[in-house]
Formats: sequence, structure tokens, C-alpha cells
Amino acid sequence: MRERHFSLGGIDGVLWTPAADSTGRPLILLGHGGGQHKNAPGVLARARRYVASCDFAAAAIDAPAHGDRQKTEHDERSIAAIRAQIAAGESAWSQVADYNAGLAAQAVPEWRAMLDALQGLDEFGGPVGYWGVSLGTTIGIPLAAAEPRIFAAVFGLAGEETLAAAAARITCPVEFLLQWDDELVPRASGLALFDALGSREKTLHANPGRHGEVPRFEVDSSEAFFRRHLR
Amino acid sequence: MRERHFSLGGIDGVLWTPAADSTGRPLILLGHGGGQHKNAPGVLARARRYVASCDFAAAAIDAPAHGDRQKTEHDERSIAAIRAQIAAGESAWSQVADYNAGLAAQAVPEWRAMLDALQGLDEFGGPVGYWGVSLGTTIGIPLAAAEPRIFAAVFGLAGEETLAAAAARITCPVEFLLQWDDELVPRASGLALFDALGSREKTLHANPGRHGEVPRFEVDSSEAFFRRHLR
Repeated sequence: MRERHFSLGGIDGVLWTPAADSTGRPLILLGHGGGQHKNAPGVLARARRYVASCDFAAAAIDAPAHGDRQKTEHDERSIAAIRAQIAAGESAWSQVADYNAGLAAQAVPEWRAMLDALQGLDEFGGPVGYWGVSLGTTIGIPLAAAEPRIFAAVFGLAGEETLAAAAARITCPVEFLLQWDDELVPRASGLALFDALGSREKTLHANPGRHGEVPRFEVDSSEAFFRRHLR
Repeated sequence: MRERHFSLGGIDGVLWTPAADSTGRPLILLGHGGGQHKNAPGVLARARRYVASCDFAAAAIDAPAHGDRQKTEHDERSIAAIRAQIAAGESAWSQVADYNAGLAAQAVPEWRAMLDALQGLDEFGGPVGYWGVSLGTTIGIPLAAAEPRIFAAVFGLAGEETLAAAAARITCPVEFLLQWDDELVPRASGLALFDALGSREKTLHANPGRHGEVPRFEVDSSEAFFRRHLR
């Protein structure tokens, strides 16, 4: 696997491709979760899988206030409030949903600029998929709603509160992950977000366990899903 | 694919195996839906898939009052009542659930006797899986609850009403299919049945569409599921 780093408008990104060059291969955009970054283990594992097993390319950038990017005073205050809520044993969902929606408003044009730049290179003229759960979905849903170049998306671990309207505008096939015992996202809110998706083909995969416990076999399933729609 | 017909206690069955003999291969029991039979197109398609792609064996029998089996006066009356309900545009779910539960009480010992007989042959000493939705789940859930030889099961298109207690006793991995716009099984009842399953590994696959519109890619998914657990 070849790993290349790039920078666009001050935002650092990573690009993973098979060692052998071939134009027109599908490209998977990887959106990381809250508190993670473009090189987080879960992002890297998926990049490796999609490149090694599917011969796809993959790309990731840091979300605003994540990875190497600066946090504003608003970020610091919001994160502290979320942590205090969790430490007190109370639901932080409403705060997380609002904070993430603010990050998404900034992130969507960043992803689109990144896609413009990559598709300017012959190498990445093929179909595009998006994978991202939790914060990766709060960014990914308005991104896919705005971006006809995204042909298929894996979302999940998020709820309807700030996302229902954008979800209704999505038309590409979606695989949606829900954790049945999610301590952050209320089950009914996750089911309602799946319900709100406008896509004719959408498939909900719900599994027992907490927010961070998506089973490994869902990586296999996402691979089959992307193969089905991007090949 | 080799197809063999057998009869046990007056009940006819079909057995599908790869042409080449090999002992110890996994065996998938195929439970058909209401109004169908052991050679229905959906059953045959799955038998072909599991035999051809996975090198598994597959077996099916007619449910009581289905296929070549006699209907009693109670069957005729129940079926007429269900049809009248549907023709009047009203929900037939309560009648269907009750009628199917009665069929299951008879079918479970039949499947167990069939399994005893097959496992008496060296050829079928391997792990056993069960696939069946709708009536196939109303029979399959009490069967899997009673039968430790079933290592993995695909269920779905059924609700909690008559099945919650048996579902709670199931421990094997389950893939559970739910049709988001099911005109027969209320969505909440299907979700509650998934919730009731006692299995530590269970995965819900929900897709848009009516009762009979489970998407084709779920056959691929069931194949991956059985490979994961029976190999």
C-alpha cells in the first residue's frame, strides 16, 4: 500500500493507493469519529482493507478541531461541557449532536474542495464512496446530500436531531450501522435517522453493544457493499 | 448439485448436496414461508447457492398443511379467515401469528426427527444452520431454542407476539431480516422480536419494502454469515 500526504487550504490529508498505478479505480473517503483523526486505527484499518482487498483508493482528512488542527475557544468549551455531562453520568447526546453539526458545517466544503482537487488528477476519476460513523456521519450526511459524486455511503452511530432534513435529500445507496445498546445515541433517534434517509436502497445493520463496539464483521459487509455499488 | 427425496413419518423432504461426496460438511435446514413448500423457488435458490458457493448440504421439508400435506378443517377455516381479513384491507397479523404458532408446535418435533435421521448418516455429521423467514421463523425460533445442534440461524419477517419467550432462550448467532414497510408484520413487533433474542451475537438487517421484497443481496449476506459460523 502506498501512503501519500497532502495539504489543501491548510488542511492535511492522507491518500492510500495500491502500489501499482491504475486510473479510474473507486475512491473511498474515510470520515473519522469524534476525538479521532485521519490516521486513527479504525480509519487506517479500513483504508488497508479497501486498498488491499478491493484495489480501491482511500483518502482521509482531519475534521475541524481534530488531529493536527487548532481548537477554538468554542471547541474547548463545548468539549469540556460534553465531558462534564458524561462524567456526571448524564446523556451528552444533545450537546454532541449540536457540537458535531457545527463541525460539519465547516467540514463539508473542505471535503468537497478535497474531492475537486483529487478528481483533478487522472488517477481519481472513478466512482466515489464515503465511510464514516458518529462524527463521520454528522459530516457525511450533509456531504452526500450536497455531493452527487458520492455513489454509495456507509453511515451510522448518529441520530435524527440535526440530520433528518439532509438525510431526506440523499439518494445514493446507504448501509447504516446502529448499536442496539448505544450509550450516546438514543435507539429511537438512530432508527428515525435511518427512516429519514431518502435513498431507495438503504440497509440498516443493528448489532448489540455500545457506541464503540461495532463488530468486526461489519467491515466485511461494508466491503461487499462498496464492491456492489462502485464496481 | 445432487437432489435426493426422502420420506420420514409420512413427511416428504428434499436433500441437496454437492455432486462430490464429502462427510462432515455443514448442513443448512431451509424453512419455507406461509403458502409455500419445500420446493418453492426461494427455497431452491438458497439451496443452490449454499451447495454451489459454499459446498454445504441443504434440506427442506413441507410445513404442516403445506405442499403435499393434508389441510385439516381448522387449517381451511384459518386460511379463509386470514384471506378475508386481507381482502377487507385490514391487518391479518394477529390471525397469521396465531395460526403459524399452531403449525410450529407440530413442525418442531418433525424437524428434530428429520435432523436425528440425517445425522444418523455419516454424511451429515457436520455443523447445522437454519434459514427461514416468516412462517420459517415462527417454526425456526422454537426449533433453535430447543435444538443445540443448530449453530447459526437466519430469521426474520416475524414479530414478538407468540415468539418472544422462545427467542429469549436462543443462544446461537442470528441474522435477522426485517422489512421496513412490511404490510403484515408491524415494524415495532419485528424490532421487539430482534430485541428479545437471547443470542450474544445477533445482527438486524432492515431494508425498505414490503413483506415479500427482501433484497437479493441478503442472500449474499446470509452466505457470509453461515460461512463465518459453520466453517
